[in-house]
Amino acid sequence: MMEVSGAPAVVLLQRPWLPVSISGCQLLAKIWFGDSAYHILLTDMICVWEERMDSAAIQRRAQELNRRLRAPVKAFFSHLCEVVQPCLSGSGERADGEALISLTRQDDGNISMKLKSELAGLPFYWEFHCTPAPVTLVCLQLVRPLLAMSHLLQRQVEQLGGLLVRKDAEIQDYRENGATLSRERLQTDVFEEETYREDFMAKALPLVCSEQQDALGFDADLQQLYASVVAHGNAPARKRKLSEERPAEEDRPAAEEPDLTPSLGVGSVSSETAERDRKQSHNGQTDAARAKMADRAAVQQSLSVTSDPAERPSSKPKKKKVVGLFR
Amino acid sequence: MMEVSGAPAVVLLQRPWLPVSISGCQLLAKIWFGDSAYHILLTDMICVWEERMDSAAIQRRAQELNRRLRAPVKAFFSHLCEVVQPCLSGSGERADGEALISLTRQDDGNISMKLKSELAGLPFYWEFHCTPAPVTLVCLQLVRPLLAMSHLLQRQVEQLGGLLVRKDAEIQDYRENGATLSRERLQTDVFEEETYREDFMAKALPLVCSEQQDALGFDADLQQLYASVVAHGNAPARKRKLSEERPAEEDRPAAEEPDLTPSLGVGSVSSETAERDRKQSHNGQTDAARAKMADRAAVQQSLSVTSDPAERPSSKPKKKKVVGLFR
Repeated sequence: MMEVSGAPAVVLLQRPWLPVSISGCQLLAKIWFGDSAYHILLTDMICVWEERMDSAAIQRRAQELNRRLRAPVKAFFSHLCEVVQPCLSGSGERADGEALISLTRQDDGNISMKLKSELAGLPFYWEFHCTPAPVTLVCLQLVRPLLAMSHLLQRQVEQLGGLLVRKDAEIQDYRENGATLSRERLQTDVFEEETYREDFMAKALPLVCSEQQDALGFDADLQQLYASVVAHGNAPARKRKLSEERPAEEDRPAAEEPDLTPSLGVGSVSSETAERDRKQSHNGQTDAARAKMADRAAVQQSLSVTSDPAERPSSKPKKKKVVGLFR
Repeated sequence: MMEVSGAPAVVLLQRPWLPVSISGCQLLAKIWFGDSAYHILLTDMICVWEERMDSAAIQRRAQELNRRLRAPVKAFFSHLCEVVQPCLSGSGERADGEALISLTRQDDGNISMKLKSELAGLPFYWEFHCTPAPVTLVCLQLVRPLLAMSHLLQRQVEQLGGLLVRKDAEIQDYRENGATLSRERLQTDVFEEETYREDFMAKALPLVCSEQQDALGFDADLQQLYASVVAHGNAPARKRKLSEERPAEEDRPAAEEPDLTPSLGVGSVSSETAERDRKQSHNGQTDAARAKMADRAAVQQSLSVTSDPAERPSSKPKKKKVVGLFR
């Protein structure tokens, strides 16, 4: 089976930031599940954590956490996807029936997420070990998109201000020609940009600063704008040179990610890739869903396999008992 | 002399991001110069770098770079401030007469900025060694403010849209009562939010993505908004718990920074500090300027001192030749 193709850095960029609540922690999460690799990002807006795992690393950890498990990655990876995705796309706890996820902040500043589910009638454990993400990744996934969003919104504010001034000119002309309102309450105040902005800031700033914010302030409108901005190539970095001279930190390739595009900002190729990917996985989960479905067939076979330890890596499906996944 | 008081993390937050161009690199810089300590941040929006130096570290590096220099930190630190600030607040090269600054990206991903100036008639060398900043710092200085800015602007866009709808209702009422325009060109189209936004995005997105952007897209309006947001306590993180349980990475104290506030989001104390500091140093440079001026008197004395190596740390000013700064 082919690895889900594309450039993970770009693919991940196209993902929305999903609000997640685990163990009482409000987080935003981005997840990418490939064929037998994953990349997850978590943030509480104070720090950003990530974990990237390739097939071999997933195999090792699965083995450590599930001593009796004897199966190749592909045999349980789709199960992991299936269980994790609802946890990281919603409220988290008991999302998938028996699946249970908990989060611990470790002394070293890392985050550990423990997952318990059931696979083939036996408990299946997984742990995500997330470490602070490289700064370049944070710039790519948050700083540049947010700056572009602010830029776009600022322009929109200016443009709408201009429209209001034109409306006022039209209204003034009607009035000067003797028009009156049939309903007094329809009358509006003349729009004055400076006055408006000062008034708005005086009122909105304390609100934004004090109110309960869902999704850490990353609400639906901003999500939509984020999606538009990242689909368009996250441009504010396009002209930058300083960090482009050499592969950035975020681009250290995982074993299974042969085509890690250095940065969205680098050129048209990655933009095209981004655009293509955006079309393919518009809601930000289609990729994983596709991988999941594609995997399901394979796993429905593999799940019932007890591989001989010697031939484990090759994993030619043979029909055996379901519990055969575990020794 | 007292160290400039306050919490550097908060103080630095209040600083504006100054556009800087050094050695052909477009950067944004934030600088804080204390009494004999500094903290600088640089970003090209692909990475963020920083350097924090305390008095002892500055003394050591000054010694390494200027073998003949024999003077306590306070004797040359105000000179450094004076030379660096114009470099990092403007075009950089040859900003302060003889001062010359250059920037090199190193193989390890760090940034080195070399400065050559003249002190007491002799060349004075300085180097900034900037390393990638901790993620928590990037969240504090960029991600959270930018998210709050987006949030505020988004609300403004909604509110202005609402105002336009009301203007249209007023206009419609005039018209329905038979009013006509004296000048046809004053007539405006009815505002429809959805249509407007789609149209705006289709036009503005490619522009924002392709145009030359000054200040890496962080233009004057956004700077102003940034200032408002950070002055208000950078609130979107206020309710977060996950990263607040323990001191964050950005808060590892430098030797001379006894009161490093953990995070702006933590509570009212840091907010008050922020507010106080905002008032004190409104344009973001006053602190350093104050420190500079306060130092100047001391340095005018110290500059002419050849301290006996044995008594160097105490630095009681004695009147001697200016070149005494150097051996």
